Amino acid sequence: MTHVEIAPAVLTPEGLQAHWQGHRRLTRRIIEAFPEDQLFTFSIGGMRPFGVMAWELYQVSQLTLNGLLSGEWPEPNWRGGVSSDRGALLTAWDELTARIDRDFLNVNPAFYAQHHTLPWGQMSGWDAMIYNIDNEIHHRGEGYVYLRALGVEPPAFYER
Amino acid sequence: MTHVEIAPAVLTPEGLQAHWQGHRRLTRRIIEAFPEDQLFTFSIGGMRPFGVMAWELYQVSQLTLNGLLSGEWPEPNWRGGVSSDRGALLTAWDELTARIDRDFLNVNPAFYAQHHTLPWGQMSGWDAMIYNIDNEIHHRGEGYVYLRALGVEPPAFYER
Repeated sequence: MTHVEIAPAVLTPEGLQAHWQGHRRLTRRIIEAFPEDQLFTFSIGGMRPFGVMAWELYQVSQLTLNGLLSGEWPEPNWRGGVSSDRGALLTAWDELTARIDRDFLNVNPAFYAQHHTLPWGQMSGWDAMIYNIDNEIHHRGEGYVYLRALGVEPPAFYER
Repeated sequence: MTHVEIAPAVLTPEGLQAHWQGHRRLTRRIIEAFPEDQLFTFSIGGMRPFGVMAWELYQVSQLTLNGLLSGEWPEPNWRGGVSSDRGALLTAWDELTARIDRDFLNVNPAFYAQHHTLPWGQMSGWDAMIYNIDNEIHHRGEGYVYLRALGVEPPAFYER
């Protein structure tokens, strides 16, 4: 009998999918928490309004899902389909959520260790994936300060 | 001959260590970027000063390393060893960085899938670990807004 020791996984594809979707649900709640007239206008220290950041998060997430599925990582047309309309942002957001639910587990697990050429450099599939999520957490954290400055109590960070 | 298919790892312990330490290096640069007299005083919207958040990040990181190594997750004494002294914060930070370098790969990989009892609930070792990192990214993102509001250009998010 051959004994094969298999290292327990730090993270499974299912765990990564749940992690990503949990963050996307929280970001969606932050988009909704903004007063409608502040989402695309309010700013601190010359930074972008949160609605503009949220479109970028959407586009990078779309790029990441497409890249992991296809191996192609074209730079997004950052101006394409972007508007100052919360409803349009949420509709796009929800369509991508459904695609991640449906398609993410079709990503070839080998892609996470392989290197890919993104618009911002060469990196592993894991690094591309986690950079995308981290960038969302980072900008959403900025959005929390905007909300507090606007006198709005943000949704709890730990609720996903 | 027995053929055993081993799924490629999404993330290795070495990759997780590098991910964590990269974020800790960036947070350290943010701590350093604050004007000394603003780190423990400047606030927006009633939020905590960034230096206070940074001590919490340090304590949760310490809890997480200790918990993954020992299986024990006692609630930190949040007031213990905490001060409004940037030098003391950076010294504690750097000592923990050295411990993570030295000890993190001694974590039993099985701990990531197992459930643990943290002060804030039951969760897997992976969830505890990634929550800790995400919480750091989140509060650091808040620190970026503080810096911009203070007229300071923050270090680039993508540099680790």
